[in-house]
Amino acid sequence: MTTWQKKAVFLDISGVLYVGDSVIPGAVDAVRSIQQSGIELRFLTNTSRQTRQMIYHKLRGLGFECSLQQVFTAPSAAVNWLRQHGKRPYCLVHPDIRSEFAGLDQELPDAVIIGDAADDLSYANLNRAFRLCLAGAPLIGIGRNRYFKLDDEYLLDAGPFIAAIEYAANTEAVIMGKPSVEFFTQVVASVGCLSSEVLMIGDDVHGDVEGALNAGLQACLVQTGKYRPGDENLISGEFDLRSSLVAAIDAMV
Amino acid sequence: MTTWQKKAVFLDISGVLYVGDSVIPGAVDAVRSIQQSGIELRFLTNTSRQTRQMIYHKLRGLGFECSLQQVFTAPSAAVNWLRQHGKRPYCLVHPDIRSEFAGLDQELPDAVIIGDAADDLSYANLNRAFRLCLAGAPLIGIGRNRYFKLDDEYLLDAGPFIAAIEYAANTEAVIMGKPSVEFFTQVVASVGCLSSEVLMIGDDVHGDVEGALNAGLQACLVQTGKYRPGDENLISGEFDLRSSLVAAIDAMV
Repeated sequence: MTTWQKKAVFLDISGVLYVGDSVIPGAVDAVRSIQQSGIELRFLTNTSRQTRQMIYHKLRGLGFECSLQQVFTAPSAAVNWLRQHGKRPYCLVHPDIRSEFAGLDQELPDAVIIGDAADDLSYANLNRAFRLCLAGAPLIGIGRNRYFKLDDEYLLDAGPFIAAIEYAANTEAVIMGKPSVEFFTQVVASVGCLSSEVLMIGDDVHGDVEGALNAGLQACLVQTGKYRPGDENLISGEFDLRSSLVAAIDAMV
Repeated sequence: MTTWQKKAVFLDISGVLYVGDSVIPGAVDAVRSIQQSGIELRFLTNTSRQTRQMIYHKLRGLGFECSLQQVFTAPSAAVNWLRQHGKRPYCLVHPDIRSEFAGLDQELPDAVIIGDAADDLSYANLNRAFRLCLAGAPLIGIGRNRYFKLDDEYLLDAGPFIAAIEYAANTEAVIMGKPSVEFFTQVVASVGCLSSEVLMIGDDVHGDVEGALNAGLQACLVQTGKYRPGDENLISGEFDLRSSLVAAIDAMV
């Protein structure tokens, strides 16, 4: 491990802290030790069907010490982006996270948000999104995943619909969520240190590790969750490889 | 104009023969003169909301001498492709052209057709198309246009949805309709001569002229229909520029 100074640690959630509803051994204590060390801590997730509140309550319910303000989700990053740019969104997002956008003015929209909105990704709604983008509205994507599996069935994620509107309106989406540099940069800004002083710990070699390195952070790949042997060879760049969150934290101090 | 031999002439329809319901002056006589010259004639259109029958009846109604077999549309080319490859399509096409596919077995589909199916481009239907492609079914696109205008409103065309499924299933669509080389090649096969012996005449510098040149045909851009001054400078390659169909035909003989 490099011995660069670490002023903040960013943690991926699913696969690093828990899998399903099972806490990964030692993870609760590891989180507590960071919280008590004076090092800033943030929790980062791409989930597009849960609000920050829902994630926060799940973490607390499993025993993790955290505050709501430490939780950054792709949708909440989109909300931050909209506030910073003074934009009124047309939201094509999953019904379960619509409340996340409730505080924003959505009359006469001048921005478009596309997430995995399921059946709301209809021809009529996509036409509305397209016409706004054709008129110059920025397109914000919540993740760019191709598909996901639900109840043994493959379903289209937001990525293909973002690609569709990009192609139709000849525009390029701003993507919120890992591995987007925009996303990491926004979380770093909440800490107030340099990107190079942050360590990102995750189980996804592309989303977590490669994304963090591209954004100028340090990174550590843990061998829990979705990690598969050899993942560490899929990308280039200098990063750490540890068996679990506990080992990653132990190596820090 | 080059003096290469011409064994066949391919005509774009809208903008070359008529605009809306108005015949372009001299076009009826020009078509008759080709039909009587012994040179093979074909009519090519990308329209995705009209069957060959509908196009044929419109041409006849406006006084053009033609047979149904001379009319090639993007959907009819898709039907030919499916027959040649022995495939059973899942058809996401406009209700007005579903009859074009009625002769094909559509049980247990192993190919996907995407056209501008309007409201049928729903999340549920796109998921079905995606899962078939993920399992290896070829994706056939009827055109690849980004959008079109209907009653003063911009609407998404098939292109963005083809792009979405390509992205999701990591595949590449076979595009039927101009400027696809596949499409021109299929029409050339119906004539039984070399591509280089065919002259394509159209008003769309990209769809008609560039597409034809890429497929090895000769090409002529006419200054009617959607032609705008300077269009001839948008592409490279050797082609003819004439004021209208009449002038193009006059130059041939």
